[in-house]
Amino acid sequence: MKALVFNKKLELVAGYEKPVPARDEALVKVLMAGICNTDLEIVRGYQDFRGIPGHEFVGVVEEVNGQQKELVGKRVVAEINCGCGACDFCVKGLKNHCRQRRVIGIKGKNGALAEYLTLPVENLFDMPDPVNDEEAVFTEPLAAVFEILEQVHIKPTDRIAVLGDGKLGLLTAMVLPHSGAKVCLVGKHPEKLALADSSQAGTLLLEDLPRDSSFDLVVEATGSPAGFELAREILKPRGTLVLKSTVAESKELNLSSLVVNELTLIGSRCGPFPPAIRALENKAVDVKPLISIIFPANKALEAFETAAEKNAVKVLVDFR
Amino acid sequence: MKALVFNKKLELVAGYEKPVPARDEALVKVLMAGICNTDLEIVRGYQDFRGIPGHEFVGVVEEVNGQQKELVGKRVVAEINCGCGACDFCVKGLKNHCRQRRVIGIKGKNGALAEYLTLPVENLFDMPDPVNDEEAVFTEPLAAVFEILEQVHIKPTDRIAVLGDGKLGLLTAMVLPHSGAKVCLVGKHPEKLALADSSQAGTLLLEDLPRDSSFDLVVEATGSPAGFELAREILKPRGTLVLKSTVAESKELNLSSLVVNELTLIGSRCGPFPPAIRALENKAVDVKPLISIIFPANKALEAFETAAEKNAVKVLVDFR
Repeated sequence: MKALVFNKKLELVAGYEKPVPARDEALVKVLMAGICNTDLEIVRGYQDFRGIPGHEFVGVVEEVNGQQKELVGKRVVAEINCGCGACDFCVKGLKNHCRQRRVIGIKGKNGALAEYLTLPVENLFDMPDPVNDEEAVFTEPLAAVFEILEQVHIKPTDRIAVLGDGKLGLLTAMVLPHSGAKVCLVGKHPEKLALADSSQAGTLLLEDLPRDSSFDLVVEATGSPAGFELAREILKPRGTLVLKSTVAESKELNLSSLVVNELTLIGSRCGPFPPAIRALENKAVDVKPLISIIFPANKALEAFETAAEKNAVKVLVDFR
Repeated sequence: MKALVFNKKLELVAGYEKPVPARDEALVKVLMAGICNTDLEIVRGYQDFRGIPGHEFVGVVEEVNGQQKELVGKRVVAEINCGCGACDFCVKGLKNHCRQRRVIGIKGKNGALAEYLTLPVENLFDMPDPVNDEEAVFTEPLAAVFEILEQVHIKPTDRIAVLGDGKLGLLTAMVLPHSGAKVCLVGKHPEKLALADSSQAGTLLLEDLPRDSSFDLVVEATGSPAGFELAREILKPRGTLVLKSTVAESKELNLSSLVVNELTLIGSRCGPFPPAIRALENKAVDVKPLISIIFPANKALEAFETAAEKNAVKVLVDFR
């Protein structure tokens, strides 16, 4: 099968071995896959991953090893964390934090930038017909946005700043206004901020943001350690900072302002798929403006290069 | 009046001018005052404070400028943050975070290591008779412990680690077990850990602490940046880290583990006085074992030196 493979360098391999589903796994034929910042980080060495990257996708179940054969032929998306099911965290419902977890395209398991991948059946979710393939690929990052709402009680009277006009920032700006709160997306790129026009969020160029401790909640999605310092400046005392960026680099930080201003910091990663699927089905968010370009599978390498460019938003690869 | 004064160096001044209460302030004669780690930091330059340090005390109201003359003669303790009453934070009930706040003995207002101090009447709280002067001095640090319970919902099934066997760690270990949770105080000093014997908390030497991500909540009260790293190691995924130390020094930190493990960090500072006063009155905590030594006022300088020694816990100064 055709697959994008990372092994010190990224290559498009034509004759990669088609995977065989293990017990309670499904073989899924990929229809469309997306390239995420984490994929770009992986190619730079993040998590020391080797194999097929990619964790944002929609596909069709071709085979099931074990029960639930009725899934064959279904169009599906999938949660990316594969728990062992037996450790103390898995037993307590923290499967996404399993001590031995594999994460598709990120850690210990091949990902979706290929014609096929295998996945635990329990990770699969039916994708409703009204959502087309291009939109369905956004389920995983959209779920990561809904994780914020799982973790934080957002009040309709809150003032929220979303820092970063990349993919995650834009999706966040589309979802959070539904809580009733006043949301402002802050970024450096007027053309990216404009992509939030169809949302209910306001937008502001970074240089125009007042540094006056007036926000109740800040979502840090810049992907840069500098976002953390900015967030502290614009948060009210007792405000909440949601950290979404997994920044590989360390930074000299002084935590005493957290104590003095009694701020709350919440690390936030993968989220629940059902609300993300509902939001796409109900057209509560319109993700189409975020698609910069769709490459055919034989140009998957070019897709990666384009995704790394500064003005790119979401780059998709079509395996149909 | 007699006063301990910090102006580049700390001096005991015999003839310091007795303060005059401003409008809506009370003149309070100090009975007993405590020395806190923040006082030691101030002498090292923290907050660039000049004047009389000290913010843990009990005293008697001698004069009131304005209403509430009935306070004269009462034994009182006092909240240490003096808000302007007019800024956006004060108006929203965040007086402790007032943009122009003065903090007695810490910022812009003389403190309690003197025979007299002045305070806004609204900061005063009656001290009930069953609490003696030595115990009453603990109201302020005890209130800081109750702030944790204001900020975090502690469940009876939680496993809690308190890091640091100093004054704040010990007080925390005395209060948190009342929530029903299993609390373990972790420290380096067997003789300090032993002071928690009368509490319901278990104790553990740092070297015996398993690094196995098994705590739901960690309270960081070591006063050292290293405590932060340790807390991250022993917290479960989605666990909560309460930061109590205002560590002046910065540290190289990588926040990505916060995101990956979805930890919550909560900065926690001053707290509510009424529950602290009730806990002392009801003997829910026994603070007496924490008193290392009581110095008379004319040996206040020596008291400061003793408080800075490694094996000291709480050092008091008697102004009666």
